[in-house]
Amino acid sequence: MSAKTLTIKEDILGANREKAEINRKLLDGHHIVMINVMSSSGSGKTSLIIQTINRLRDKYRIAVIEGAIASCIDADKITQENIPVVQINTAGGCHLDAQMIKKALDTLALGRIDLIFIENVGNLVCTADFDLGAHKNVVVLSIPEGDDKPYKYPVMFVEADVVLVNKIDVLRHFDFKLDAFPGIISGMNPSAKVFPVSAKTGEGLDRWFSWIEEAST
Amino acid sequence: MSAKTLTIKEDILGANREKAEINRKLLDGHHIVMINVMSSSGSGKTSLIIQTINRLRDKYRIAVIEGAIASCIDADKITQENIPVVQINTAGGCHLDAQMIKKALDTLALGRIDLIFIENVGNLVCTADFDLGAHKNVVVLSIPEGDDKPYKYPVMFVEADVVLVNKIDVLRHFDFKLDAFPGIISGMNPSAKVFPVSAKTGEGLDRWFSWIEEAST
Repeated sequence: MSAKTLTIKEDILGANREKAEINRKLLDGHHIVMINVMSSSGSGKTSLIIQTINRLRDKYRIAVIEGAIASCIDADKITQENIPVVQINTAGGCHLDAQMIKKALDTLALGRIDLIFIENVGNLVCTADFDLGAHKNVVVLSIPEGDDKPYKYPVMFVEADVVLVNKIDVLRHFDFKLDAFPGIISGMNPSAKVFPVSAKTGEGLDRWFSWIEEAST
Repeated sequence: MSAKTLTIKEDILGANREKAEINRKLLDGHHIVMINVMSSSGSGKTSLIIQTINRLRDKYRIAVIEGAIASCIDADKITQENIPVVQINTAGGCHLDAQMIKKALDTLALGRIDLIFIENVGNLVCTADFDLGAHKNVVVLSIPEGDDKPYKYPVMFVEADVVLVNKIDVLRHFDFKLDAFPGIISGMNPSAKVFPVSAKTGEGLDRWFSWIEEAST
C-alpha cells in the first residue's frame, strides 16, 4: 500500500507546487511577504504571532491566515488584535495546501497588506510537504517537546528558514540542550537561523523581529 | 482539491479497516492485547511505555512496535529494556497503517507475547484515522501543549479509550486547567478515562497500570 500512497502523494504535490507559484506571483505583484509558520500542536504559534503583530503593526500592515482542523479558537484570539484574519477550517485535513491559501488570499484586500503570517495546522509531519506560496518557512519547536525532534521529523527542519525555539522560560525544568541545538540544525540545514525565544516573557524576540524586517525589505 | 483527496482517503481507510480486522483476529487467536499509543511529537510516549514495561514485565510478556518517520531513537531506547521491539520506519509517512502492523506482527513470536504496545508516529491528526487492529487506543497529551487541544484536534480524543495527561510535574509553570480537563473529555467522549500522570516522577501511573491489567483480562 505504501507505494500506491506515494504515487498519489506525488501527483498531489506536483499540482500543489504549481498553485503555490501562482500564489507567490500574486503576492509579489502586491509587494507582500508571506511567512508560513509551522509546528507541532501546542508549541506556541498563536502566541508568537500575536507578539509579532503587536511589535510590528506600526511598521507593517499585517494579515493572518489561520489553519485549523476543527475549531476557531486561534482565529478568535488573533481577531482581537483588529487585523484582517482569514480562517481556513480543513475539516479534519492535516495540512494547508496552496489552493486553500489562494482562496484565503482572494478574500483579503491585498493592496492594503505588507505582511501575511500563515499559522499552519499543528503537525510536524504533513505540513512540511506542501509549498503554500510563502516566501519564508518558519518552524516553532518548544522546549518541552525535546531537542531530538529535528532527527525524528527532519523534513520540516531541513526546509526551514528560521527555527524558533519557544518556551525558553521553562528551560530549567526540561532536559533540552539549548547550547548544542543550533549545531544540530546547522548540520542538516546550514542556512537556517535558530532563535531561542519565549513568547510568554518576550525574551529573545528582538532577533526574530529583526529577521522579519530583513525578510520584508 | 479537497473533495478529490477525500475520495482517495475513504478508499484507503476502507481497505485499512479490513486489514485491521485481520490483525485483531490474529491477536485474539493468541490471546494478545494490543494497545495503540498516540500523541503529538514530544508528549512523552516513549518514556511512558518504558515506565509501563518496567512495572508490568513480571506479569506480562510485552513487545513494542515502534513507529517513526526517520530515526530509530525511540526504538533504540526501548531495545535497552530487553523485550521484543519491531521498528517501522514510515520514510516520511505521517501515520502507521494496518498493513505495516501486520508485517511487524509477522516478525514477532506471538505465542510468547501477552501485551503489545504500539508507539505511533508523533502526530495528533493523521494517526487517529487509521485502525491498526489494536484493542485499545490511548492518547497522550502533555501539560505544556495546553488544555485546548481536544477542541482543536477532536478526532483522536473522541475515539480514545484513555487520555493520559503527562508531565503533571511541571503543571505549575503552565496555564493548563487540570481540574476542568476531565469534563472537557467526558463532554466529547463519556466513556474515556482521564489519568493525570508524570512519566518522569511516576506520579499517577498506578491508575494507568491498573487500567492495563483490567484491559488485559
